[in-house]
Amino acid sequence: MTDFAFRLLATDGSARRGEITMPRGTIRTPAFMPVGTGGTVKAMYMDQVRDLGADIILGNTYHLMLRPGAERVARLGGLHEFARWPHPILTDSGGFQVMSLSALRKITEKGVTFRSHVDGAVHEMSPERSIEIQGLLDSDIQMQLDECIALPAERREIERAMEMSLRWAERCKVAFGNQPGKAMFGIVQGGDDVELRLRSARALRDLDLKGYAVGGLAVGEPQDVMLSMLEATCPELPAEKPRYLMGVGTPDDILKSVARGIDMFDCVMPTRAGRHGLAFTRRGRINLKNARHADDHRPLDEESSCPAARDFSRAYLHHLVKSGEALGGMLLTWNNLSYYQDLMAGIRAAITEARFEDHFALTTENWARGDLPAL
Amino acid sequence: MTDFAFRLLATDGSARRGEITMPRGTIRTPAFMPVGTGGTVKAMYMDQVRDLGADIILGNTYHLMLRPGAERVARLGGLHEFARWPHPILTDSGGFQVMSLSALRKITEKGVTFRSHVDGAVHEMSPERSIEIQGLLDSDIQMQLDECIALPAERREIERAMEMSLRWAERCKVAFGNQPGKAMFGIVQGGDDVELRLRSARALRDLDLKGYAVGGLAVGEPQDVMLSMLEATCPELPAEKPRYLMGVGTPDDILKSVARGIDMFDCVMPTRAGRHGLAFTRRGRINLKNARHADDHRPLDEESSCPAARDFSRAYLHHLVKSGEALGGMLLTWNNLSYYQDLMAGIRAAITEARFEDHFALTTENWARGDLPAL
Repeated sequence: MTDFAFRLLATDGSARRGEITMPRGTIRTPAFMPVGTGGTVKAMYMDQVRDLGADIILGNTYHLMLRPGAERVARLGGLHEFARWPHPILTDSGGFQVMSLSALRKITEKGVTFRSHVDGAVHEMSPERSIEIQGLLDSDIQMQLDECIALPAERREIERAMEMSLRWAERCKVAFGNQPGKAMFGIVQGGDDVELRLRSARALRDLDLKGYAVGGLAVGEPQDVMLSMLEATCPELPAEKPRYLMGVGTPDDILKSVARGIDMFDCVMPTRAGRHGLAFTRRGRINLKNARHADDHRPLDEESSCPAARDFSRAYLHHLVKSGEALGGMLLTWNNLSYYQDLMAGIRAAITEARFEDHFALTTENWARGDLPAL
Repeated sequence: MTDFAFRLLATDGSARRGEITMPRGTIRTPAFMPVGTGGTVKAMYMDQVRDLGADIILGNTYHLMLRPGAERVARLGGLHEFARWPHPILTDSGGFQVMSLSALRKITEKGVTFRSHVDGAVHEMSPERSIEIQGLLDSDIQMQLDECIALPAERREIERAMEMSLRWAERCKVAFGNQPGKAMFGIVQGGDDVELRLRSARALRDLDLKGYAVGGLAVGEPQDVMLSMLEATCPELPAEKPRYLMGVGTPDDILKSVARGIDMFDCVMPTRAGRHGLAFTRRGRINLKNARHADDHRPLDEESSCPAARDFSRAYLHHLVKSGEALGGMLLTWNNLSYYQDLMAGIRAAITEARFEDHFALTTENWARGDLPAL
């Protein structure tokens, strides 16, 4: 059986082109992972997700443990079989959603107690239980349980959460044990404080994990704060391990984070925006709710690789969005995930060919130039 | 250019196997037309609809005239181009939805005045305007404007509406004029009164239209009343013209109506039921909301021609439906439209091979036998 392995294929400045190999498949990095919250990438068929070039998707432990339940997914053959996605899956630890979605959460050294947002039932989740759940889901890349706090926050509070997250990383490492084909990643915390970020990164490095995430960013702080945290953190992480920036972000966030050494991303933005009438394109964002599209026979982007962008008029997309038709969300989600995967493919090619800086400038220019003039 | 033509290929008892040829394609009858209300068959890609074997879809004049507007659809190249369905489209007249969806409707000999359910704007629709709108949509088979009343109703009221619908049929015929590649169908009315149905059918026959619909059924009356109306009406309609039963129905309704000489059907049932967790299968209806499916690894129907029925566990479908995930409606709609198209294909083959009665009995037995026993 293939072990979990990461190979660095090329670098260009701090940007890295790499490859994760695992028994269920190869992940080309920099990679964007579509979010499949409850065992489905919303409004998409898995075949479409795969055909767009996604090597891996993300599943949310919090959602899946509550519904349909981790033990049930295990009985049904694991998340890959359940959701009909035979390729790699990364699961988060559930911690972030406990903070953002559940009620009456209480955090202690032992773990977190919370009420389900689905049915109000009380659940306990320790670092060990989080790893157990991710194992029941048969997740290929599992995340440590951490405490993620919103910014801005008091330094003392950031430090406390970061320190506890480190102790939880150790417990998760023990709970995960030795699973050659899989990986458990640690998560750097430390808010917007460089010194705390450095302490967190160094302590995690000493744990010798298979990969490292940067967590607790894109939680309310300005983009330049996020980027300066990456600039401080990435050099402290071992070059031979993959680096994952959790929950990020816009195409611009991704481009700038790759430039600072990040290898993996996930975000609900392309899927959620698609369900709300927003399209990501080479020319920036297009709001299909806008009346300017009502009589526009032109497609979103005739040069796109995605049928959703090429084969339907903006007028039709506008009509579907305004009418609340499911097909509107289906087509725009398809377009958006296609754009994100094409963005990553373009980034990977540019790093390989040592022209990342030019590619960065050109991509940004195209966004700034904006959409076609109205008809 | 191909003219509109109907050929009877085989009969078996009163059941008819036929073929409509038109410039945009051939319609194998008996045919089920998926409903594409607002320019989209809800939660489906048009490619999927086509691949299931649909030769024609239905568009709703009422919805499309209000949003995006008939003149706009015409400017954008017609409904086929707008919705990316290059095959035949039948449009209703808008009359039925005016009665069921709009507010403050007022019916006179001239036509109907109503308020849009979308934005409250006042619209007028005469028989002439209905045909004009259907022309702007570039509909291949257009329907006369009629007045459809709910049952039970007073005979005098049924008669008044039937007589006015006949006068409107004449006006629609004049408005439609001579369009060789297209057709305008008249609609038999008369409620649950055989004598009125006969008068309506005979008067319409004298108008020598290209096809005939039976309207005003499945509007509250028991199934046996509907079927006895068909038994009275169909023999009065010319054998060499197609017969369309509007807005019907369940698989059982369809089987029994084919047995009485109906050639075309449309109904929101497979699409609407799919969005509400209900699957149509060879073994009858399956309610995926039911907890018995929560741990069931079996597919809906492993012998189905549709991936939605074969490749996903009932447990997964149950989970999607319970979670309100778009994919649940997408998969069940796909399954249901597949079942309906397979039902029609089975009916057509049976008529061709002169074994419709046996096929009818076997199909009905399978429904009655019911779903697989619970695990």
